[in-house]
Amino acid sequence: MNEITYSPIGKVHSDYTSKDGMPIQSAFADGSKGTVEIKKEYTDALLGLDEFSHIYLIYHFHLMKSNKLVTKPFMRDLDLGVFAIRSPVRPNGIGLSVVRLEKIEDNILYINDVDIMDGTPLLDIKPYISRFDIRTDVKNGWIEGRTENKKKQVSDKRFE
Amino acid sequence: MNEITYSPIGKVHSDYTSKDGMPIQSAFADGSKGTVEIKKEYTDALLGLDEFSHIYLIYHFHLMKSNKLVTKPFMRDLDLGVFAIRSPVRPNGIGLSVVRLEKIEDNILYINDVDIMDGTPLLDIKPYISRFDIRTDVKNGWIEGRTENKKKQVSDKRFE
Repeated sequence: MNEITYSPIGKVHSDYTSKDGMPIQSAFADGSKGTVEIKKEYTDALLGLDEFSHIYLIYHFHLMKSNKLVTKPFMRDLDLGVFAIRSPVRPNGIGLSVVRLEKIEDNILYINDVDIMDGTPLLDIKPYISRFDIRTDVKNGWIEGRTENKKKQVSDKRFE
Repeated sequence: MNEITYSPIGKVHSDYTSKDGMPIQSAFADGSKGTVEIKKEYTDALLGLDEFSHIYLIYHFHLMKSNKLVTKPFMRDLDLGVFAIRSPVRPNGIGLSVVRLEKIEDNILYINDVDIMDGTPLLDIKPYISRFDIRTDVKNGWIEGRTENKKKQVSDKRFE
């Protein structure tokens, strides 16, 4: 299996210019507005996207500097494999967020519930579709039953 | 923004050795079993993942050969931007599926609800977490209200 090379389709702009104060998940980032600037040559690929209320952003954790396979998540003092947590520490630094899409103007997407660092290179956008993406009878592993609202808390562990 | 290079963390094995008969989404793939073979050196990164019932697989559409920005989705005769559909036709060929995790033995994950082609290079695994990933008040764009069950129909458009 060979290496795979992607070229960013655009960039995320947000209020988070440092890791201090970032929400640890977009579900906790209610009201954090941002924009996605798509490269002009991909504008046509947005056709029809404005009819969706929520979208997946798939991006590159450009500030990650770690090759750890086991770490502690922000929400719990417990060693876990990086595939069992959502932090930027992972072999391929791919991030995934569901954000609310407010509107699209030309190549600019106006988004809400943003938990993404300013300047993050964007790799892909997909529509969030209830029938495909909402699963029931979910067992939430180590995070089950944890109810803290970590909105806007400092998440220092994100970029260890 | 420069190019970003990833190295696969493993490979997906499924019954789908050609595009004929593939379910178009994992939500329609109930009962389609498969495995994920993680490279031995990443086995530690799986610690704690077995406590989750559902996981995201992020993978590379290795059979994609298209650079179209607008196409018709499988479920509707309508031109749409590739960012508004979930097909493999997209600037960066990144695929995203939610699958059920049955069990993990060493570096092998046994999964269900698989809609992924056999041999697909895997880029990342993330736990599916109800609180982060289930959104309400979702507006489903062009797919809203379409109720066809396309399970195991031939999806020729997937690899145009």
